[in-house]
Amino acid sequence: MSHSEILAASGLTEAELTGGTLAVHTPVDGSEIARLAMHSVAEADEMIATAHEAFLQWRTVPAPRRGEFVRLLGEELRREKEALGALVTLECGKIYQEGLGEVQEMIDICDFAVGLSRQLYGLTIASERPGHAMRETWHPMGVCGVITAFNFPVAPWCWNAALALVCGDPVIWKPSEKTPLTALAVQKICDRVCEQFGDDAPKGLTQVLIGERDLGEALTANPKVALISATGSVPMGRAVAADMSKRLGRTILELGGNNAMIVAPSADLEMALRAIVFSAVGTAGQRCTTLRRLIVHEDVYDALVPRLVKAYAGLPIGDPLAEGTLVGPLIDQDALSAMDKALVQAQAEGGTVHGGGQALAESHGAAAYVNPAIVEMPGQSAIMHHETFAPILYVVKYQSLEQAIDMQNAVPQGLSSCIFSTDVRETELFLSAAGSDCGIANVNIGPSGAEIGGAFGGEKETGGGRESGSDAWKGYMRRQTNTVNYSRELPLAQGIKFDI
Amino acid sequence: MSHSEILAASGLTEAELTGGTLAVHTPVDGSEIARLAMHSVAEADEMIATAHEAFLQWRTVPAPRRGEFVRLLGEELRREKEALGALVTLECGKIYQEGLGEVQEMIDICDFAVGLSRQLYGLTIASERPGHAMRETWHPMGVCGVITAFNFPVAPWCWNAALALVCGDPVIWKPSEKTPLTALAVQKICDRVCEQFGDDAPKGLTQVLIGERDLGEALTANPKVALISATGSVPMGRAVAADMSKRLGRTILELGGNNAMIVAPSADLEMALRAIVFSAVGTAGQRCTTLRRLIVHEDVYDALVPRLVKAYAGLPIGDPLAEGTLVGPLIDQDALSAMDKALVQAQAEGGTVHGGGQALAESHGAAAYVNPAIVEMPGQSAIMHHETFAPILYVVKYQSLEQAIDMQNAVPQGLSSCIFSTDVRETELFLSAAGSDCGIANVNIGPSGAEIGGAFGGEKETGGGRESGSDAWKGYMRRQTNTVNYSRELPLAQGIKFDI
Amino acid sequence: MSHSEILAASGLTEAELTGGTLAVHTPVDGSEIARLAMHSVAEADEMIATAHEAFLQWRTVPAPRRGEFVRLLGEELRREKEALGALVTLECGKIYQEGLGEVQEMIDICDFAVGLSRQLYGLTIASERPGHAMRETWHPMGVCGVITAFNFPVAPWCWNAALALVCGDPVIWKPSEKTPLTALAVQKICDRVCEQFGDDAPKGLTQVLIGERDLGEALTANPKVALISATGSVPMGRAVAADMSKRLGRTILELGGNNAMIVAPSADLEMALRAIVFSAVGTAGQRCTTLRRLIVHEDVYDALVPRLVKAYAGLPIGDPLAEGTLVGPLIDQDALSAMDKALVQAQAEGGTVHGGGQALAESHGAAAYVNPAIVEMPGQSAIMHHETFAPILYVVKYQSLEQAIDMQNAVPQGLSSCIFSTDVRETELFLSAAGSDCGIANVNIGPSGAEIGGAFGGEKETGGGRESGSDAWKGYMRRQTNTVNYSRELPLAQGIKFDI
Amino acid sequence: MSHSEILAASGLTEAELTGGTLAVHTPVDGSEIARLAMHSVAEADEMIATAHEAFLQWRTVPAPRRGEFVRLLGEELRREKEALGALVTLECGKIYQEGLGEVQEMIDICDFAVGLSRQLYGLTIASERPGHAMRETWHPMGVCGVITAFNFPVAPWCWNAALALVCGDPVIWKPSEKTPLTALAVQKICDRVCEQFGDDAPKGLTQVLIGERDLGEALTANPKVALISATGSVPMGRAVAADMSKRLGRTILELGGNNAMIVAPSADLEMALRAIVFSAVGTAGQRCTTLRRLIVHEDVYDALVPRLVKAYAGLPIGDPLAEGTLVGPLIDQDALSAMDKALVQAQAEGGTVHGGGQALAESHGAAAYVNPAIVEMPGQSAIMHHETFAPILYVVKYQSLEQAIDMQNAVPQGLSSCIFSTDVRETELFLSAAGSDCGIANVNIGPSGAEIGGAFGGEKETGGGRESGSDAWKGYMRRQTNTVNYSRELPLAQGIKFDI
Repeated sequence: MSHSEILAASGLTEAELTGGTLAVHTPVDGSEIARLAMHSVAEADEMIATAHEAFLQWRTVPAPRRGEFVRLLGEELRREKEALGALVTLECGKIYQEGLGEVQEMIDICDFAVGLSRQLYGLTIASERPGHAMRETWHPMGVCGVITAFNFPVAPWCWNAALALVCGDPVIWKPSEKTPLTALAVQKICDRVCEQFGDDAPKGLTQVLIGERDLGEALTANPKVALISATGSVPMGRAVAADMSKRLGRTILELGGNNAMIVAPSADLEMALRAIVFSAVGTAGQRCTTLRRLIVHEDVYDALVPRLVKAYAGLPIGDPLAEGTLVGPLIDQDALSAMDKALVQAQAEGGTVHGGGQALAESHGAAAYVNPAIVEMPGQSAIMHHETFAPILYVVKYQSLEQAIDMQNAVPQGLSSCIFSTDVRETELFLSAAGSDCGIANVNIGPSGAEIGGAFGGEKETGGGRESGSDAWKGYMRRQTNTVNYSRELPLAQGIKFDI
Repeated sequence: MSHSEILAASGLTEAELTGGTLAVHTPVDGSEIARLAMHSVAEADEMIATAHEAFLQWRTVPAPRRGEFVRLLGEELRREKEALGALVTLECGKIYQEGLGEVQEMIDICDFAVGLSRQLYGLTIASERPGHAMRETWHPMGVCGVITAFNFPVAPWCWNAALALVCGDPVIWKPSEKTPLTALAVQKICDRVCEQFGDDAPKGLTQVLIGERDLGEALTANPKVALISATGSVPMGRAVAADMSKRLGRTILELGGNNAMIVAPSADLEMALRAIVFSAVGTAGQRCTTLRRLIVHEDVYDALVPRLVKAYAGLPIGDPLAEGTLVGPLIDQDALSAMDKALVQAQAEGGTVHGGGQALAESHGAAAYVNPAIVEMPGQSAIMHHETFAPILYVVKYQSLEQAIDMQNAVPQGLSSCIFSTDVRETELFLSAAGSDCGIANVNIGPSGAEIGGAFGGEKETGGGRESGSDAWKGYMRRQTNTVNYSRELPLAQGIKFDI
Repeated sequence: MSHSEILAASGLTEAELTGGTLAVHTPVDGSEIARLAMHSVAEADEMIATAHEAFLQWRTVPAPRRGEFVRLLGEELRREKEALGALVTLECGKIYQEGLGEVQEMIDICDFAVGLSRQLYGLTIASERPGHAMRETWHPMGVCGVITAFNFPVAPWCWNAALALVCGDPVIWKPSEKTPLTALAVQKICDRVCEQFGDDAPKGLTQVLIGERDLGEALTANPKVALISATGSVPMGRAVAADMSKRLGRTILELGGNNAMIVAPSADLEMALRAIVFSAVGTAGQRCTTLRRLIVHEDVYDALVPRLVKAYAGLPIGDPLAEGTLVGPLIDQDALSAMDKALVQAQAEGGTVHGGGQALAESHGAAAYVNPAIVEMPGQSAIMHHETFAPILYVVKYQSLEQAIDMQNAVPQGLSSCIFSTDVRETELFLSAAGSDCGIANVNIGPSGAEIGGAFGGEKETGGGRESGSDAWKGYMRRQTNTVNYSRELPLAQGIKFDI
Repeated sequence: MSHSEILAASGLTEAELTGGTLAVHTPVDGSEIARLAMHSVAEADEMIATAHEAFLQWRTVPAPRRGEFVRLLGEELRREKEALGALVTLECGKIYQEGLGEVQEMIDICDFAVGLSRQLYGLTIASERPGHAMRETWHPMGVCGVITAFNFPVAPWCWNAALALVCGDPVIWKPSEKTPLTALAVQKICDRVCEQFGDDAPKGLTQVLIGERDLGEALTANPKVALISATGSVPMGRAVAADMSKRLGRTILELGGNNAMIVAPSADLEMALRAIVFSAVGTAGQRCTTLRRLIVHEDVYDALVPRLVKAYAGLPIGDPLAEGTLVGPLIDQDALSAMDKALVQAQAEGGTVHGGGQALAESHGAAAYVNPAIVEMPGQSAIMHHETFAPILYVVKYQSLEQAIDMQNAVPQGLSSCIFSTDVRETELFLSAAGSDCGIANVNIGPSGAEIGGAFGGEKETGGGRESGSDAWKGYMRRQTNTVNYSRELPLAQGIKFDI
């Protein structure tokens, strides 16, 4: 499909795509594909007010009925999977297979959220007082602001929105200014769902804010936004956290990762090789869960690393819409510069760089295609403590597993991690209290590509938030502890006596 | 028991109680009872470093064994209940019955935590990939800083410590500078437990920081403190949240409450009367869950409020150590001034004040005894949106339950709330998504006096944290999502194809 | 739609509907609508063997993929809702609205089960031994035999099948010999789903056994059937339990109910009236949750019972396919005789009968239409301890709630129960440990019409099984407790010393 | 300690120990140590009636208060650990270390149950109807009959009793007629706890039935016994199940095991060796979790089995009260005969027997000391499908893990199992849906010695029951699903329309 066909298939009209001030470029060839109108802060506040009105209605719609909304959303997404997947690719540059994968993740979380809509389990709890019933229920929280990053333009919204909607919270979405089109396309889908759903869906149940950082700040500043779920860089997360701390508002933060793999002597190297390549160069190294650090036991280093360098050399780089491409472009020229800079620093710190540098410069000069880089490092130096959003894989050696785990844990980020080993003593140690300090720790698979059934997120500078599966839905609700006295006495807890 | 007997029974030595710069006064008569040495920030950092070393050891002690530590702590507290209860009374001024209740709460949470120590349940989760096992485990988090307030000098520490210790986290406690003695006495108990427990208990498992605000800041600033659990005022909570947002650290905040009771026409007024008095004047109105706002249906207003005023007039005010006393002193003269000021403002806003003003001025002039106040208000005016830490109960009328709930929810705090009604339609509505917006919502009992089995905490400016029962223990651990591939294939989630 | 149109719309072919020995009559007019071939016991054993082979494959299909099968089943049921609902009405005689409701319940449980397919949560558990990980997982159980009754010909199958399939268990269905057509129609739907689903769905994943009691016995006798879930009468349940006890096999039993409503003085009588009529005469009194006993406080007896008798007199009885009908026929003449007999006994025990007796005898003589009956009883006599599957409602008076609860609990069955009261003290007492002894206890709704989100089933002679929501899915899986030692030591639990 | 000192320390009086018709022999030397009065069936029925009265009171005592009872029980058991442990050894013959371990298990479950007493969590559940609240609560069940076996004379009672008591169920205990003394000693401890506890503990809260099979039948026959939890042989379990099926009563069955270990090529053989010996000869092979089948990979067979034979030859057999003894006596001469018979059959089926036969015949002729036996088998023959309650370990070879798992699963019992392997692919497969079919499956530890935190029990002929940790407590309570309509409407589930 051509770029214009993809845009047409997205349902966005010419009028919507033009006439504004926010220029949208496709990383595929660097060309401008739209120029969108941006919202003002005042408009944002109006939209928040509408969302709050929606909340007052939506919270009393029974949760299974709210689940039906999300079920319909899932059905629409199934219908639009190819069209939306292609738009994802066009707008953010990831290969089409990954674009489809992102939409599939949206579908999966909708299915999951539908099931949740008949659960949202609180507890009934044994009370210490006769004639008293104690319980805990979970109630809708309020308007949920969702801030997303360019690299996953749609799935994280859906992780948040599917849960938030089922939990009774309207959603206002501030997408990256680099990927607003997919957001608008998803909003169109939501609009269709609203129509099918009927009157129970209040006006403003889902909304999109198009613009820049000031709109994110409009969300954090407005007390009617009960919750901000933000995906992005650590500085962005710090800013959101600082803003929200002023009003003691709630956040779910999914920030940077600096994800490692430990390759143990007993590892299946063939499998490790494939996992490394997918994890390190998938999405051109721009996943928050991208593999960035490879910690290889000295005994298998020589059996693995040269093969890896060779595999890198043969990777098909090019148009992410073309079949067969495995490495698409970086999002923009800034990303290319950051990559170049990091490689220079790595070399300065003793690293040996394989690959790197711009690719397809003649044919795609306006775009930011690069050769993925492997950097053999003498140790875990300063650059390795930073997340550079590009396909750079640092490789270091280790002698003992304890040392490898220490290296894995020595960075400020705490998102994802993995070990390749067939030794259960090693794998279980890696997953234990004395093992990886990340929110995600895998065995014999890479650090990326989480299933939606587990809770997704990480510790330390990654921000501590959890999205998606397990009991992540609790982040979107408020908990209420109830004690009901149905007796004719008034005993006090802890056996206190207080007789007036 | 005399004050000196109480001090002696606490196990604190003369040397410990004297020679420092932090003067401790008892609110019972305003006299100085100790002058303690304060820690410097440098010492605090050393103690944190020790605690971190303790963490590295303690996290690998099996949780049920950690539970045994807490069981022994509970046993020691049982033995020391009277001595510690009396010291609580001496230091913070609550009546002895409440002092005992606070220790009982410590004991209860220990029992509960012991049970938890064989649970700390994560999940095994169905994976979408063949030959893959997915699960979620909870691991120790790191050093836990606990900041507590004068009004509950010991129980909140224990809510935090019992859970934190079982969860694998050493605890550093910064008590209120107004109530450091009880903290030191509890640390003595912990020292004895460590001795009984043996080598598994690392040095620095529990520690106490004596001093002022700078020590709290030492905790929030130090990245080795993984978690701060802070109880206190909203400004204090905001400061902690802002500090922690800089390093994206974790907090559990239990801040101010502004708790209301709705009295419906069908209420059992006799029972309501008793609940109101205990909730409003217990701990001399200095509980975070103290009843501060009484929202009475117009049909029962006249049957209730005059009786309440009369009951207040007969309350025994005096030495909290004396049997029969129900109202002890405020913590200090500042609290008395704040109460006076609030009553002046309330009158300015149209209120009719019953009671108020200093009590026992002749006999206890250095102390801050007061007459609890009832203020009949024409509506929910500005003063009613503020938490004044004193026994002031504002009373307003309502016509419809929806209106009463709106008033209840209109304040910035969201800790505790209750309704007195025998109508199940009213009580369930009050507990529903459209009802109280507080973390605690009770029926036919007052807002205070929570059992430890439920999660304790509140929404909005109350800070969102939860302590004590239910799954509050999760706040002290880090969650890890694991996927283990035990097959010989490497399928990707969401069915993505990526073949190198 | 005519009967033949309904049959045609079901997808069953002429060849399938004729030529056998099992005559199927519609209770609508008593006419024969099919004559089906019956399976032999030998065929049943072959089908079980096939199902067991299916199990060995299906158990290793990832649960979320199994969930996709159930999602597709739900989609097909949405498409066939009207056709299948009409067939339900034709075959078992319940009114079309209830036929649709039954299919809706199938759809709902499919949605719920899809969500479960990414959960099936076991636990990770804190181990008392260093270097040990403890957890609990749930695994597929084996072939699940489902035995259903005529009155809910399709929904209970789906409650069981949706969960069993997601849990990894193939299903063999033995429907009532009175309602085999709907079972065959559902199997057709399953066949279509299998085709869409592809090779992951093994042959024999769902199967239907057409015939009589010997086929049920073939299921209970065969050790390859790991689990029998049976809905029906108490004698049937006892027989299944006795058979399964021989091989220590697992059962889920949903047997008789003898459901009561308590109407308290504070009840909303208007609402109670409507709830009573729906609960007592819906499905012509042939629900397992049908209201059979009405326990009315003496103070409201006269305000309620005469109105109820009057409402009964005006109920539209007739063709269940016709719009406006609220009372369709009994299943057959035997049911009519049983009703007559019960009314005779009730009179002998002092009851005053309102209504009762055959209706529409001239026009529908071959069918078993009846006038629903209300019987005012002097006390809870012998007949009231029995479940007569017909629209008979016994009414007794009570003085105190304790007495009413005692009456409610005095029967051998323990399925469903309810109270109409607006007094929260009464409603909570009714739901407490000292209240109703039934598996279901409702407030201000009737005993029937459960949502699929809760666990469905009852105690005592009702058999103790639970189906549908909550953690009922555990009944379809086997639990495994795992301890993994990843250390190099071999400590024993409980600190036992045993050194060789 | 001498036998008489042990008896004296147990608190049982001379009068209690003599004068009856039930002769109690110690397996230590075969001598008679007591002659107890037996209860009649009529007395049993009276005791059940008393227990039912106790139930009516106990169910309304708040669960945390019930937990306090169990906490006091745990404290008493701590005090009596040595005395009771010695009596266990004297009466059932297990070595003193194991006697202590059994009491420790009682203490552990008490600690766990105390924690549970503030949980007993049901669920609050999202309802599909507006103005409706759905929840699920767990209520006390009724009198719990506990039937125990000689080999664990006290711990299984406590697993059941600690949970049952916390759950609100009085307990009647029918111990093995071979080990009634420990039961009486435990009842003495309970009596002391009742005294400390005060009036909340009703008469008959725990009771012991001394006698034979007819008393077990008295429990199964009496409808006031809501639940039977029985530990013992498969025939006993079948009888209990058949009896209870008649009245559709509830059972928890812990029956026979036939537990296997798979030793893989990658296993730590040193560790395996120790685990095998403890699991196979501990309690003289009379644990339900005793290792009975050893499935060894052909590549390590020769490295393991000869060492094992040698280790067996050196095992210290003798007086279980003597320090250093690892193998005490069988319970009686019948057990010895059964062992001899099994070895004869094993030889007939091609086995090579190492060890076996009576030991210490001269010195302890009246007792049944034996040499533990290892039998190398050519394949898994008929005798290996049977549980012989004696220290016989059958050893077979395997080639592939799938084959080993098939052998492991091919027996009718399904209690415990384990694998020794360091290969995570093998260990996870063993724990997967396609792995062990047992209720317990371990890695790198033996099949015996479960911690109380996990659910204990097994599948197939083992009976399906679960005791001890996880949510096993649910087996002692009845579940109630509640829907509360607090609206003024009466919507029906599934959207059914039914307007009168």
